[in-house]
Amino acid sequence: MEIGVIGIGKMGYNLALNLLSKEYRTVVYDINRDNLKDLDKNGAIFADSIQDMAKKLNRRRIIFLLVPVGRPTDEVIEELTKYLDKNDIIIDGGNSNYKDSIARYEMLKKLDIDFLDCGTSGGVSGALNGICSMIGGDKEVFEYCEKIFEDISVENGYLYTGKAGSGHFCKMIHNGIEYGMMQSIAEGFELLYKSDFNFELDKVAKVWNHGSVIRSWLIELLYNALSEDKNLSGIKGIMNSTGEGKWTIEVALENKVPVPVIALSQFMRYRSLESDTFSGKIVAALRNQFGGHKIEKQ
Amino acid sequence: MEIGVIGIGKMGYNLALNLLSKEYRTVVYDINRDNLKDLDKNGAIFADSIQDMAKKLNRRRIIFLLVPVGRPTDEVIEELTKYLDKNDIIIDGGNSNYKDSIARYEMLKKLDIDFLDCGTSGGVSGALNGICSMIGGDKEVFEYCEKIFEDISVENGYLYTGKAGSGHFCKMIHNGIEYGMMQSIAEGFELLYKSDFNFELDKVAKVWNHGSVIRSWLIELLYNALSEDKNLSGIKGIMNSTGEGKWTIEVALENKVPVPVIALSQFMRYRSLESDTFSGKIVAALRNQFGGHKIEKQ
Repeated sequence: MEIGVIGIGKMGYNLALNLLSKEYRTVVYDINRDNLKDLDKNGAIFADSIQDMAKKLNRRRIIFLLVPVGRPTDEVIEELTKYLDKNDIIIDGGNSNYKDSIARYEMLKKLDIDFLDCGTSGGVSGALNGICSMIGGDKEVFEYCEKIFEDISVENGYLYTGKAGSGHFCKMIHNGIEYGMMQSIAEGFELLYKSDFNFELDKVAKVWNHGSVIRSWLIELLYNALSEDKNLSGIKGIMNSTGEGKWTIEVALENKVPVPVIALSQFMRYRSLESDTFSGKIVAALRNQFGGHKIEKQ
Repeated sequence: MEIGVIGIGKMGYNLALNLLSKEYRTVVYDINRDNLKDLDKNGAIFADSIQDMAKKLNRRRIIFLLVPVGRPTDEVIEELTKYLDKNDIIIDGGNSNYKDSIARYEMLKKLDIDFLDCGTSGGVSGALNGICSMIGGDKEVFEYCEKIFEDISVENGYLYTGKAGSGHFCKMIHNGIEYGMMQSIAEGFELLYKSDFNFELDKVAKVWNHGSVIRSWLIELLYNALSEDKNLSGIKGIMNSTGEGKWTIEVALENKVPVPVIALSQFMRYRSLESDTFSGKIVAALRNQFGGHKIEKQ
């Protein structure tokens, strides 16, 4: 089989290696050619442009995108529409908003280009060794590509989730859950760290991964981090986010589903980006106004 | 080696089987003799009373408690103090509050009886096949019993956490984290369930356990539940709790650690116990007062 991969960042690079190891004829393209590194030595075929990629693939083309969400994904798809033929297939493997994916599916449908939205989880190591993938779109198109999903995923690690948008929706919820799980784990470890006991946090993470109810890959990863840096003293507690948590909360608001824990996990991330807060000033000012409580001056 | 086990509920029964399978001479006692069932056929020795258990064990006795927390645990320990000798060891394997465990340790210290607080995780199946245990108390006492912890735990599944109370503290935090993880998973699945897509929830749980970032034992358990009952229509959404979440929040307040997600997970459990709320009446009444918004009559 053959496939094109556009977007050779950390994920795309490893996904290409994964595909090459399964003997796919793999054509790769990145806007920054340096990102392709030595993929040719591993058997990849380099494309000089999106047009060139279209030339180097046989019909019914399958092109897998791992491109930054939003405008960059739109631009790549727009460019692809110029060179693809009827029923060629674009798979968006990025973290696109599911509403964008539905819009792209509909736009491409009009051009007779097929589209799948593929949520991928498993991180950079997963891209190399097997991801977890959730795929939305037309069933016939999914089935045409199924072997690919089987090959790039761990065993039992892919699922056709239904109509267009459902793959990215499913991945969005996955990430919302991930936010809450991470925040909960984080709060617990802060309690251990600030307790009157002398817990060795790495050892606690390790033991919890052996037989406890909360054993999980996240706690395995935390064990790795804590073994490298006992109390994470080398890391600032800045918690960035890429959108899926926010979108999860937006969907919750649209569908009137209370998601207090996921919402607070997102808000705690925003809080972590500030060293002082305006709301803090407000409360300090009010306490001063009504009770004469001291304020700390800037 | 030999051991006494007091409290043959679901956990104690399986723990006894676990010990017997490792050829411990196991003396068992429960206030309700029926709970012992056929443990004698598996080699257990039945004690008729706590006094009888003390008689049937050789010194330095080791007695493992899996008794309901609070008063029942106190009563068993009080009774034990009458019959134990110097340096006999009581291990509290229940979910006791770590402050109670510290008090018991100190009280027993004065009587020259040794005490370990052992947080155990892994559920009923863990008790049979291997738990995760976190043990606090004097190091010498831990080391004297270490073989037992090794034998009843999964591989790498036990940890000496430090001075008295630390084992139950560690288990309490584990459960606090568990509350937050469960609530986050729950919110995510409610969003899937109430979405415009037609997710098969069991299949989503299954695929997420294969290669995704949130793969975990909790999601494995959820997969089991969803495969038995597709949309959990046979289950009421009542979320009881046994204390560890509440205690985790109390410790957070004492140590001024913000734990919004763990706290909200506990509060959502309380919310689930009510079909209507007083705070709901208040907000409805106020909306009616200032805006004439309709209230629904009781």
